[in-house]
Amino acid sequence: MTVRILFAALEKRWAEFEVPLRAALSEAGMAYELAPDLGPPETIDYIVYAPNSDVQDFSPFTRTKAVLGLWAGVEDVVYNTTLTQPFARMVDDGLTRGMVEWVTGHVLRHHLGMDPQIKKAGNWEALHYVPPLAQDRHVTILGLGALGRACAETLSRLGFSITGWSRSPKDIPGVACLHGNEGLQEALSVGDIVVLLVPNTPETQNLLNAETLGHLPTGSVIVNPGRGPLIDDDALIAALETGQVGHATLDVFRIEPLPEQHPYWTHPGVTITPHIASETRASSAARVIAQNVQRGETGQPFLYLLDRELGY
Amino acid sequence: MTVRILFAALEKRWAEFEVPLRAALSEAGMAYELAPDLGPPETIDYIVYAPNSDVQDFSPFTRTKAVLGLWAGVEDVVYNTTLTQPFARMVDDGLTRGMVEWVTGHVLRHHLGMDPQIKKAGNWEALHYVPPLAQDRHVTILGLGALGRACAETLSRLGFSITGWSRSPKDIPGVACLHGNEGLQEALSVGDIVVLLVPNTPETQNLLNAETLGHLPTGSVIVNPGRGPLIDDDALIAALETGQVGHATLDVFRIEPLPEQHPYWTHPGVTITPHIASETRASSAARVIAQNVQRGETGQPFLYLLDRELGY
Repeated sequence: MTVRILFAALEKRWAEFEVPLRAALSEAGMAYELAPDLGPPETIDYIVYAPNSDVQDFSPFTRTKAVLGLWAGVEDVVYNTTLTQPFARMVDDGLTRGMVEWVTGHVLRHHLGMDPQIKKAGNWEALHYVPPLAQDRHVTILGLGALGRACAETLSRLGFSITGWSRSPKDIPGVACLHGNEGLQEALSVGDIVVLLVPNTPETQNLLNAETLGHLPTGSVIVNPGRGPLIDDDALIAALETGQVGHATLDVFRIEPLPEQHPYWTHPGVTITPHIASETRASSAARVIAQNVQRGETGQPFLYLLDRELGY
Repeated sequence: MTVRILFAALEKRWAEFEVPLRAALSEAGMAYELAPDLGPPETIDYIVYAPNSDVQDFSPFTRTKAVLGLWAGVEDVVYNTTLTQPFARMVDDGLTRGMVEWVTGHVLRHHLGMDPQIKKAGNWEALHYVPPLAQDRHVTILGLGALGRACAETLSRLGFSITGWSRSPKDIPGVACLHGNEGLQEALSVGDIVVLLVPNTPETQNLLNAETLGHLPTGSVIVNPGRGPLIDDDALIAALETGQVGHATLDVFRIEPLPEQHPYWTHPGVTITPHIASETRASSAARVIAQNVQRGETGQPFLYLLDRELGY
């Protein structure tokens, strides 16, 4: 039996993923057809999927056993009522490692106070800043899923004092884990540097707002590689103006690309990176997809299934 | 018996070290006198020492059992022929950890290509850069003493491909260790990012010069938290001009503070940090000094003795 796999994503992704996907599927020993166009929907076994593809109505895909997401975020598919097939999120080791590298780099950048040195904003004496050791720097990670947990573990091994927060209780060695609404206030109140890695759900929108930003120690740094809507942008700019927030390094925004006239572009307390913290790496992502196809074909449960009630 | 310890360093160091030193000596259970002025040299048991102190002639200190350095570098004392007493280098866990944090931060900064983003040098598209994963980034560490080894181990755990080089053969798990002159060329030839942590000796002066810089892959980044004389400055500037070297992040210089008219200040390919990568942290350094005094008083060999022949 040949497994028929539709690749439903932008053309540039096909260019990027075709070779690694074919390699991973062949390595898994599967007979398959894989293409961006495979004929009638009712003949498709699996869909490799990005939310900005042409496929928006899943109801004609009557034989499809699973929709396999290419990206980590799922907010664009979770409310698609035509999607009744199992949907697997992308949990890609390459994506996780890339995120850990981005977060670790920017936390160390803020910890070491690099920016004036990189900008050569001053003479020898003015640039002199000896930071405390990492053990005396408190980093708070909001969200302890695969990405948040990996970041917490790596930063903890580097010596930072880590507080983690999540909706439900977690237990991570070396990390002070808090949860729930009361835990959030405590987690924010100790964060010299606060990293946002919670999923984007109705409950987490504007998680950082005028009230919660007020719990931070004065001059805290916000690092957001999670999702744009987690932050109330007006409240953040106000907090930067008063000095309540010392700096914000933002990788994600409500509208992307971030519009040219957005105040973040000109605010000296904001660093913008253009949604690069969590790129799926084609080679490792292809192996995750092949693994799930193989599990479906051998009757094993799919990995990383979306929980529609939780929204992630 | 009361141990008499002279504190021979600048006044500001006394302000910084007095409390931690007294705490560490008391914790070690010692009866001691400690002061920046303790009367006749022939009554002094130990000297806590910085090379820029008033003490330059050690010959009157006839009873002194050891001179205990406050800093990691020893090039200013190794040729002092009046210093016949045992000299212990500072090997401070706090200093090592601070160095690891500085090196890891700047390696990640270059790995991630942060500078244009921090400088906001471009729009959304221009700032878009997705780096390879750390496993595909080659970092070469020159010097595998306490500092180089700690940096190599930490960067290796973060996933980087690490090549280490030292004068004599070393063996560090997860690190490709090379040594000797032929090893140097190979170590340089694979280094996307090259970190200098060799001691400053006659043999290592101008270790990076016009010839050795030529072994680097085009566009390599130099990171020097070691010692200024390791680099031929004119050759480095020439290599930056041709693009052979893509960037240099320098913490140490032949003359410090770096003179205001030095071309490094204006060269866009050079980042200057003002000798902050390897600061002794008073609390942990005080414990190292107290430990060595205690070893001297109980007849145990001193730790971290200077080898005058090797020069470190």
